[in-house]
Amino acid sequence: MKLLYNKYKSMVEAELKEFFLKKRMESKLLSPELHDAVCRAEEFTLRGGKRIRAVLAIIGYLAAGGNNLKEITRFSIAFELMHSFFLIHDDIIDNDLIRRGGPSLHASYYRKYDKRTSESLAIIVGDLISAFSFEPVLESRFDLKIKQKALNQILDVIKKTILGQMLDIVSISRDVNEAYIGKIHYFKTARYTISGPLIIGAEIAGANKKLIDQLEEFGKRIGKAFQLQDDILGIFGDENKLGKPVGSDIIEGKKTLLVIKAESEYINKRLGKDISKGEIEKIRKIIIDSGSLVYSETIMKKLILEAKEILLQMDIRDKEKKFLSYLIDYLEKRRT
Amino acid sequence: MKLLYNKYKSMVEAELKEFFLKKRMESKLLSPELHDAVCRAEEFTLRGGKRIRAVLAIIGYLAAGGNNLKEITRFSIAFELMHSFFLIHDDIIDNDLIRRGGPSLHASYYRKYDKRTSESLAIIVGDLISAFSFEPVLESRFDLKIKQKALNQILDVIKKTILGQMLDIVSISRDVNEAYIGKIHYFKTARYTISGPLIIGAEIAGANKKLIDQLEEFGKRIGKAFQLQDDILGIFGDENKLGKPVGSDIIEGKKTLLVIKAESEYINKRLGKDISKGEIEKIRKIIIDSGSLVYSETIMKKLILEAKEILLQMDIRDKEKKFLSYLIDYLEKRRT
Repeated sequence: MKLLYNKYKSMVEAELKEFFLKKRMESKLLSPELHDAVCRAEEFTLRGGKRIRAVLAIIGYLAAGGNNLKEITRFSIAFELMHSFFLIHDDIIDNDLIRRGGPSLHASYYRKYDKRTSESLAIIVGDLISAFSFEPVLESRFDLKIKQKALNQILDVIKKTILGQMLDIVSISRDVNEAYIGKIHYFKTARYTISGPLIIGAEIAGANKKLIDQLEEFGKRIGKAFQLQDDILGIFGDENKLGKPVGSDIIEGKKTLLVIKAESEYINKRLGKDISKGEIEKIRKIIIDSGSLVYSETIMKKLILEAKEILLQMDIRDKEKKFLSYLIDYLEKRRT
Repeated sequence: MKLLYNKYKSMVEAELKEFFLKKRMESKLLSPELHDAVCRAEEFTLRGGKRIRAVLAIIGYLAAGGNNLKEITRFSIAFELMHSFFLIHDDIIDNDLIRRGGPSLHASYYRKYDKRTSESLAIIVGDLISAFSFEPVLESRFDLKIKQKALNQILDVIKKTILGQMLDIVSISRDVNEAYIGKIHYFKTARYTISGPLIIGAEIAGANKKLIDQLEEFGKRIGKAFQLQDDILGIFGDENKLGKPVGSDIIEGKKTLLVIKAESEYINKRLGKDISKGEIEKIRKIIIDSGSLVYSETIMKKLILEAKEILLQMDIRDKEKKFLSYLIDYLEKRRT
């Protein structure tokens, strides 16, 4: 299954390369400044990433009986472009300088411009990639009615992801509870990363209501588990593998479930501040000793178990069922 | 004709109100934070603005023989939503606190959050309105093929406007010449404000190639003249009528044609810095004495004359011809 994942991932990346090549050619004719921006966006997009959203759109399509792999792959890069757009704006908002093992988009401008100009340029490069993301949908050869529906759904995913972002930003300057965090996880991760792409792919292939509901419930659980895993790796993971500094959630002041369940004054005081390696060690110890790590891990396991149940009941082809099952295994074992 | 303009403007505003009412209802069900953001975006969008883009989309449609005024009006608000999105991001980039006689969107958050959080929220509220702007297009009842074409053209307008923005931002930290400024005016104003909406409206009504080309050439000239006028009013206008401080272009470091043609070390040294009322007086005097004001005014007049010629040759209904002619008169006389 890893082979299959890599196959789809390579296909998605080939489409992305073709897309950006076209954009580079177009932009070169218009202005060197735009060409430079497109090159940065291309490098940023192709530098890394699991392509999970695009691959899941493909899987959703195939699971629902679709058979035009080439066309759905061309379509699927919309999700990767959308993801680049969100990451670019996210990194400005979170003041993250590193992403996918290299500079974030605004940081890539630092050598040439001051901080403010770099951030300004990155805001509009994000806007540009956001506009780009509609093109693979409009250009795809699916039926016009299907494309219209897909566009509406993509807009819905974008709006809900923005809601998740908003809740996330606001959470830094207020008290949050577990339900609030659950909402962020649903909008910012579950729907955006898992159920959104799966369902949109499936709808293109004309999936029935039952399958759509199952994919939604499956995605909700996998997405939330994925986010909990992400939060855990953000504090307990290996910096070299993560592509970003360990503890950056704490430095950004993010109130993860790990943090709020630890109920630690020591940690709360450090939210939003720079922390030393020693402090990270101490924070890790508190999260373990308070039982907060086990709490998050237990929820994660429950969500994964439920997702497995839902998957079992899905009436889809064996190949895609195995693939989604592989995704769960991967999620359970991932370290980056 | 002013009556007709006001009639279309009111129709556009009624549609905008209906759109935002729906969005408020939807957002209220999802989260108070999103509802708050939608209310801010609504207030910001409805507070002021000439609705010129929406009105021109209507005019382009009618000029090309379209006869579904209700439907094109519903469609046209896409341009006003897009404009709100650009203004929101623009104000963050330019650090403008005032817009349309009230706080810019990020400044509206200042009472509740710190500067950074306010700007972060405004970045994503802008992204949200950008997503909103596709909805009136998708929801309109025009033929699917026409909608697909319109979407492609709207994306093209967005991308070119972003290019104009990019050139604008970059211009602050480098030398620019008249040609470079002309490019900014074309992408950031002419196409975005005039020819884009006109042409998209006309294409929806099935305009022929000749009319499209004429509208493009007309819009190019009117748009550039409009921008030159804007630059002049930005320094010589009446602060109370403008809705923003006189001299803000200088404070933001914008290299307008007025500034570069004055070739004044005194002005160049003040670009990007706060300036006093006395300094504005001195700057005005230099721009007049150097002949730079007359230079810009002369180009403006030439552009307007050419636009009138093109308009004369257009084979469109009398009513819309008169309307576009009225627009030129308005442009020549406007003081805000």
